[in-house]
Amino acid sequence: MGRVKVSGSPTSSEVARVLVCLFEKNVEFQLTRVDIYNGLEKKPEYLKLQPNEKPLTFEDDVTNLVESRAICRHICEKYKDQGNTDILGIGERERKLVDQWLLIEADKFEPLNSDLVFDLIFLEFATTISLRVHSNKEAIEEYKKKLGKVLDVYEQRLQETRFLAGDKFTLADLYHLPDVHRLIKSTLCADLFASRKMVTNWWKEISSRASWKKVMEMQVE
Amino acid sequence: MGRVKVSGSPTSSEVARVLVCLFEKNVEFQLTRVDIYNGLEKKPEYLKLQPNEKPLTFEDDVTNLVESRAICRHICEKYKDQGNTDILGIGERERKLVDQWLLIEADKFEPLNSDLVFDLIFLEFATTISLRVHSNKEAIEEYKKKLGKVLDVYEQRLQETRFLAGDKFTLADLYHLPDVHRLIKSTLCADLFASRKMVTNWWKEISSRASWKKVMEMQVE
Repeated sequence: MGRVKVSGSPTSSEVARVLVCLFEKNVEFQLTRVDIYNGLEKKPEYLKLQPNEKPLTFEDDVTNLVESRAICRHICEKYKDQGNTDILGIGERERKLVDQWLLIEADKFEPLNSDLVFDLIFLEFATTISLRVHSNKEAIEEYKKKLGKVLDVYEQRLQETRFLAGDKFTLADLYHLPDVHRLIKSTLCADLFASRKMVTNWWKEISSRASWKKVMEMQVE
Repeated sequence: MGRVKVSGSPTSSEVARVLVCLFEKNVEFQLTRVDIYNGLEKKPEYLKLQPNEKPLTFEDDVTNLVESRAICRHICEKYKDQGNTDILGIGERERKLVDQWLLIEADKFEPLNSDLVFDLIFLEFATTISLRVHSNKEAIEEYKKKLGKVLDVYEQRLQETRFLAGDKFTLADLYHLPDVHRLIKSTLCADLFASRKMVTNWWKEISSRASWKKVMEMQVE
């Protein structure tokens, strides 16, 4: 099989999602990253992209993909017998539950997360250039309220099962890693999680997996 | 001016030498690196290179270079008024002393270091694949003896001046950073430095510069 090639920065959520999946599936891959350093500082992701530059590319002997969830799915199917073999669920019932929670992530969690993160990054940028943005903070509160309702569903689910799709860590949990990581480290959003006990326990468990710890190490540089 | 572009892995001595120079001169640059991960492990440099793959490339609006010392020289001349402005020496006398120590590094230190590192890496590789290599260890001892004589000259010089070319950190010191770092962390070679007091102090001082600490951080991932 041809070598798996990924390009992008591990600090991007899209790239981080693919990396943690490759680590879970124990797949050998080549990572190309481009960073800009200004003196001793690495430039933040949002100041770095060039026009036409794709934040993530994935290439192997069968496909070229640019969307992290499609890439993860492809990796899990192609390497189904190696690394973490529970990741798509085992047996029809488990697989259906995984699919169901992948849909919830895509339809409910991700759109709100994406709006929220956009505003958080804009606020960070505005603060960097000393711009005042009141309306932006109001939008953040609005998105937080909506995302809180989604997380209430998670809280209820996690009272019944250890992970979203059941008793094992699956792709449904994995998809959340980069985004929850970003939200939880933001002082404006940390309370979304801290106020929900089962969600907090779930986060502690999934974020302490070796695969995710490795990606976080890679984000430092 | 066009953006400075460097490609290569910060764990390579050639690349590390250019990075520390860019940090000293406070130059904005873009770094492209390609790493291979096998499961959670990053593959060592010596197993990673593809045929025709250059370990280091440098590009800006005026030049394309592939040798770290030529690149560092070019950076220091092009950006002579920014960052560390002492780096090539100030005034004719200082500049001559810097040039003299750059020659000593290139003619005396580097060839022996290069032979020694080649054998150290080969030994590491042989150990990885459980190959016994007696003659290799003898060669290492032989090179160590010769390099020791070069370091005796450094020891004597450093009894007179704080850095190689005088009282300021210059390119002559900088050129040594990646190679001494590699030798000093090898259990077989650490005594080469530990047994020489002034060389040890000099190493402690130059290796604690912010520019080099940053490169070491970048080597971790």
